[in-house]
Amino acid sequence: MLSDPALADLSALFGARFSTARAVLDHHAQSESLVSAPPPWAVVFPETTQEVSALAALSDRHGFPLIGWGAGTSLEGHALAPQGGVTVDFTRMDRVLAVHPEDMVAVVQPGLTRIALNDALRATGLFFPVDPGANASLGGMASTRASGTATVRYGTMRDNVLGLEVVLAGGEVIRTGTMARKSAAGYDLTGLIVGSEGTLGLITELTLRLHGQPEAVSSAACAFPSVSAAVDCVIATIQMGLPMARIELLDEATVAAVNAFSHLALPPAPQLLLEFHGSPASVAEQAERFGELAAGFGAQGFQWAEKQEDRNRLWAARHQAYRAILASRPGATAVVTDVCVPISALAQALAETAADIAASPLPGPILGHVGDGNFHAILMVKRGDAAEAAVAKDLARRMAERALRLGGTITGEHGIGFGKTGLMPAEHGAGWQAMGRIKQALDPKGLMNPGKMVP
Amino acid sequence: MLSDPALADLSALFGARFSTARAVLDHHAQSESLVSAPPPWAVVFPETTQEVSALAALSDRHGFPLIGWGAGTSLEGHALAPQGGVTVDFTRMDRVLAVHPEDMVAVVQPGLTRIALNDALRATGLFFPVDPGANASLGGMASTRASGTATVRYGTMRDNVLGLEVVLAGGEVIRTGTMARKSAAGYDLTGLIVGSEGTLGLITELTLRLHGQPEAVSSAACAFPSVSAAVDCVIATIQMGLPMARIELLDEATVAAVNAFSHLALPPAPQLLLEFHGSPASVAEQAERFGELAAGFGAQGFQWAEKQEDRNRLWAARHQAYRAILASRPGATAVVTDVCVPISALAQALAETAADIAASPLPGPILGHVGDGNFHAILMVKRGDAAEAAVAKDLARRMAERALRLGGTITGEHGIGFGKTGLMPAEHGAGWQAMGRIKQALDPKGLMNPGKMVP
Repeated sequence: MLSDPALADLSALFGARFSTARAVLDHHAQSESLVSAPPPWAVVFPETTQEVSALAALSDRHGFPLIGWGAGTSLEGHALAPQGGVTVDFTRMDRVLAVHPEDMVAVVQPGLTRIALNDALRATGLFFPVDPGANASLGGMASTRASGTATVRYGTMRDNVLGLEVVLAGGEVIRTGTMARKSAAGYDLTGLIVGSEGTLGLITELTLRLHGQPEAVSSAACAFPSVSAAVDCVIATIQMGLPMARIELLDEATVAAVNAFSHLALPPAPQLLLEFHGSPASVAEQAERFGELAAGFGAQGFQWAEKQEDRNRLWAARHQAYRAILASRPGATAVVTDVCVPISALAQALAETAADIAASPLPGPILGHVGDGNFHAILMVKRGDAAEAAVAKDLARRMAERALRLGGTITGEHGIGFGKTGLMPAEHGAGWQAMGRIKQALDPKGLMNPGKMVP
Repeated sequence: MLSDPALADLSALFGARFSTARAVLDHHAQSESLVSAPPPWAVVFPETTQEVSALAALSDRHGFPLIGWGAGTSLEGHALAPQGGVTVDFTRMDRVLAVHPEDMVAVVQPGLTRIALNDALRATGLFFPVDPGANASLGGMASTRASGTATVRYGTMRDNVLGLEVVLAGGEVIRTGTMARKSAAGYDLTGLIVGSEGTLGLITELTLRLHGQPEAVSSAACAFPSVSAAVDCVIATIQMGLPMARIELLDEATVAAVNAFSHLALPPAPQLLLEFHGSPASVAEQAERFGELAAGFGAQGFQWAEKQEDRNRLWAARHQAYRAILASRPGATAVVTDVCVPISALAQALAETAADIAASPLPGPILGHVGDGNFHAILMVKRGDAAEAAVAKDLARRMAERALRLGGTITGEHGIGFGKTGLMPAEHGAGWQAMGRIKQALDPKGLMNPGKMVP
């Protein structure tokens, strides 16, 4: 709990933007997944880096933890306060600070969401490509090293954050990276902070790499006789060097849920959803080459979406797949799994996972960013049913262990939070202790998002 | 100096692969640039990770520094021993351990050079794209976060190292990263070690990302009326989203040196050297679009190299530019500068640098990877002339300060070593102290490549 002097200092610093109101605390204890924790002790809504720095100094003086909060869309409890503390809600730091079109760079505050950024960029001919589906905050996306549907072409947050302003434990403010495209000057602090989930500091500004809006875009869905045929087609596509902008797998159960929820009429079979970016001629060539390749793997029923409205409809359906799947079992909540394996092991990982789920009492449609080897099962659990929740968590753990056995990782894009901290030693071995030493060096009192990720 | 017990332990561990012979020590005191230091106390040639681990344990017990050595091509004294110590020469750890074509991944030892790797990959249809010109070792390239001519398309070592095996101070061995394309599992230790120049540990194995050999390749040289016209053309090219594989600037003095050295007949004017990768149709389209664009900036005299032998000749000339420039002033040695700025500031940075060099008594041709905003001046100094060396070092310092003033970095790809350690606070401010805390956490006794990069 916060001491009276801490309460007084927080109130003096933030005034009406400091809250211990029940409704505010409860809002910041919500999670999109089954991971849960008690509400934080208080919530603050900073508006400037200076306020975040002063807050970190108070945290150091009074010994209370700080937990960053962006849009509340994370899936492993990153923004929850399992050890109590003060939640730092960045929704008031949501401005685009600068756009440099010649450098293809935007400087933004951490509370800005990815959709708001792309809306602001529309007239520039540029866009920010990392697209995890949810309208997450950019600070949160950097903190969790988010990726998504367009990562096969444009990379993850690791690849698209050029620099950061970070408030360290104690209140010191550092700037990492520059506006230049690359640098060989010292340790990559930008890359260290990206994916550190607020355990090393709080991000107060991001310098992001933008990309040119493609001149032409073409999307398609096509059906395959089996998941493994679809995966073999993906491998061949990548090896051929076709520059896919998106290549997504939906298994048959996901297709059924998406058809029902988004009023599509995809054939009842495993599907790949595709997108090509480029000049009109190159997009046409890519589509033709993909079509020839896919035919060899038994693909049929290509549905092309050339018009923007058709494309939007297709990708909106993909992005709503999580809600569509949840809606397929009324009263359900979900354990959303996330593993990533080498492409060569993807078919095996998918087959073993599907068999494991089929042998359980739970429905668990599978979908994924298969160009990256990354996939999710949405394990549906009756709300409040502890036995089903335990089954789901066992399935999820086995998925992670399977990914490790196949040379992959326990999370491709959702991160660790406290949902997966227990699996970290299995992935990293002695490297996990090295992470703990870095944490100790930068946050010796353990005030930055404690209880997560590191030893 | 090494104590007698240290000498005995090293000799017992390495036998004939431990040397204190004058010639061996002198060879490991050589540097490609003006940065110099006395020879190390001894050199060892490990053959296994276990030997490197045992060596680090001896280093910890006896308190002697360890300095990694790859191919000796670094430019800022990274592999020299300014504080003495034992040089770890990785030339006997030069094997390709595995190639996984489906995953487009190779696992290699650190002493393997990039050309040897690409020779080994030839039959697979894959290649490793990071190309700094010199035939550097891959461990050294990872340690210095190397990049080069193909980085505008394929990225730097940061983007192409998926995982590492690292021996930490004291001898602990960690593995970072996995064979999967991406991960959100914890701190990016791979990214932290890449670019850390051996100050956090010694790389004993690398998992590298490969790319498909392009189906079609086309190269060209074209002349521009001025450096700024060439740079404006580069900016327009990038904004248009043309996927250039290489786009290199040579100023007029560099063109003259290259013509003389490599028997080319490029027109005496600033040149862009270009390369396009893709399908035959897309390469043809890219070349046509570039040609239209470049004409608007006054480009003329396109020389296309469609045949492999012509392309090889053109890029060999580019890669030998450093030697060509040195040959243009007999008896000279060089200070090779390296800065990187936001593309929008590139024309200004180049103009101010050229003016600064023109006002000095030294010749300093300029060339660079202008698609990244990265360029070099080769400042030629009469060998042994201290006054000229001082002028060159002043010019280099002003280049770095100019890059910072324009929002860039003091090094795009050559790294810090001890040549540029003094400039680190100016670039990183409080972030430099944070780097020092990380160094202290992972190497508390300061045994890993001491005296470089960090406070």
